Amino acid sequence: MVQKFLMQPLFDQVAIVGLGLIGGSLGMALRKGRVARRVIGFARHETTIRKAKARGAIDDGDTELCPNWLGESELVVIATPPLTVVPIARQIVKLTRHRFILTDVASTKGEITQALGSFLPERITYVGSHPMAGSERSGIGAANLDLFRGAPCVVTPVARTSRTAVRRVFALWRSVGGRCVEISPAHHDTLVAQISHLPHLAAVGLTLVAQEEAMGLSAGGFSDTTRIALGDPALWREICWTNRRAITAAMDRLLKELRQLRGLIASGNSDTLTKQFRTAQKKRQRLKR
Amino acid sequence: MVQKFLMQPLFDQVAIVGLGLIGGSLGMALRKGRVARRVIGFARHETTIRKAKARGAIDDGDTELCPNWLGESELVVIATPPLTVVPIARQIVKLTRHRFILTDVASTKGEITQALGSFLPERITYVGSHPMAGSERSGIGAANLDLFRGAPCVVTPVARTSRTAVRRVFALWRSVGGRCVEISPAHHDTLVAQISHLPHLAAVGLTLVAQEEAMGLSAGGFSDTTRIALGDPALWREICWTNRRAITAAMDRLLKELRQLRGLIASGNSDTLTKQFRTAQKKRQRLKR
Repeated sequence: MVQKFLMQPLFDQVAIVGLGLIGGSLGMALRKGRVARRVIGFARHETTIRKAKARGAIDDGDTELCPNWLGESELVVIATPPLTVVPIARQIVKLTRHRFILTDVASTKGEITQALGSFLPERITYVGSHPMAGSERSGIGAANLDLFRGAPCVVTPVARTSRTAVRRVFALWRSVGGRCVEISPAHHDTLVAQISHLPHLAAVGLTLVAQEEAMGLSAGGFSDTTRIALGDPALWREICWTNRRAITAAMDRLLKELRQLRGLIASGNSDTLTKQFRTAQKKRQRLKR
Repeated sequence: MVQKFLMQPLFDQVAIVGLGLIGGSLGMALRKGRVARRVIGFARHETTIRKAKARGAIDDGDTELCPNWLGESELVVIATPPLTVVPIARQIVKLTRHRFILTDVASTKGEITQALGSFLPERITYVGSHPMAGSERSGIGAANLDLFRGAPCVVTPVARTSRTAVRRVFALWRSVGGRCVEISPAHHDTLVAQISHLPHLAAVGLTLVAQEEAMGLSAGGFSDTTRIALGDPALWREICWTNRRAITAAMDRLLKELRQLRGLIASGNSDTLTKQFRTAQKKRQRLKR
């Protein structure tokens, strides 16, 4: 079985556009696991290509999207920030003529899926992905082989998406250790607003409120709670913009909860306050499993 | 030098009232480091006393505050939740006649300091402490020798507090590895509201907002940001009540920041949003040092 696997990689050639934390880690995992026969990478800067080669993330690469390499790829992964996915896909359409599967790794899926649906030709099957494996670190230097191990990898097809293509994208993330979940693009955006985008905004808010003197006294609690405020501001701006509807809805719910907690504290309504704390504690304990 | 230290412990007998995470860890560190010649512990339940002895946190202990043992202690540490510190101190006053230093470890200092100031006799010198070494775990089972190593330990004397006593309490926390900081009770409460109480409330709010389905997808970000929502609800209720003024002020600032972020996202004001993210990122990076 292992031998057969070694002889028949899951994919022939895979092209990765964007060799940051996610694209770089994916290339490393695909090559190390012999999941793809060949991995081609594209990045804006020559130094990134060099580093990606040195780290074993790609077999070869270029700073320009290259028709030959794209043309030989049965899977193209766009691993760039949300707002660049659609323009890059437009370029890829122009530079190719063959049939292939296109996926991306952006943290928001609704707007991208809708935009791509409006211009992708029938020969290109788009299946959105979102491996929940980011970190506050970024760049090829932070890439690592095990980034996707155990990570929830959301796959977001729409009703008309070919099931064969969906299965291929599931296989991609499983092959690098991910735990695949299929969710619609809009529902994905609602859920990640709650567990990723909203926590980032809360961390930013908490960091802005804390005086420097207070931060000097802080222990593990503050440090853990605000860690994601370290994330790349430009990337988070794009996430917020492309998921503004779900994020503002989630923020309204958070603001309501916080105003309520504030009211309970100010009025000394200790029983209800304790009840809220207990509800949150129990809910959070279930996450520990 | 080491020998001299071993022969002359910093304290003769120390009494610890409350053998939870903080009291238990303090006892363990004092005994292991031979900082005190003898450590006496008081707890409500016999099983706690037994566990504390087994873990090396106390030499002896009782479920009732005992005049003899208190009378032989030159330092008494009340390591119970905020609302119980004052009633326990009242009992201790009645049960003793000798001169000693009294400290506590409660997370809020203003109300306690004021209340104690109104009835403590001159022979008892109170110096408030707050070792910032909690965790979402609690109880003697979670106690550990190194809990205070590197932890900021805030000491909160008032103007009239004897400097000799303040130095003794500094020495106590230093001897178990703490990094001492002297701050007034009111200012302490303002600062910890920002870096401890507000993050807890934000974590509770985020946990309440997240749908169970969303939590199933969560990765490290959500888990880190909401970890402190695991804290003991009854303890947090007492913290919120005894620090309601500073907490509601801090919450008002957080609500303002979040409303502002929400406005920037809804209106697509990306430049200002990125600027806010960058400010938070830089501020949070300084904490990493």
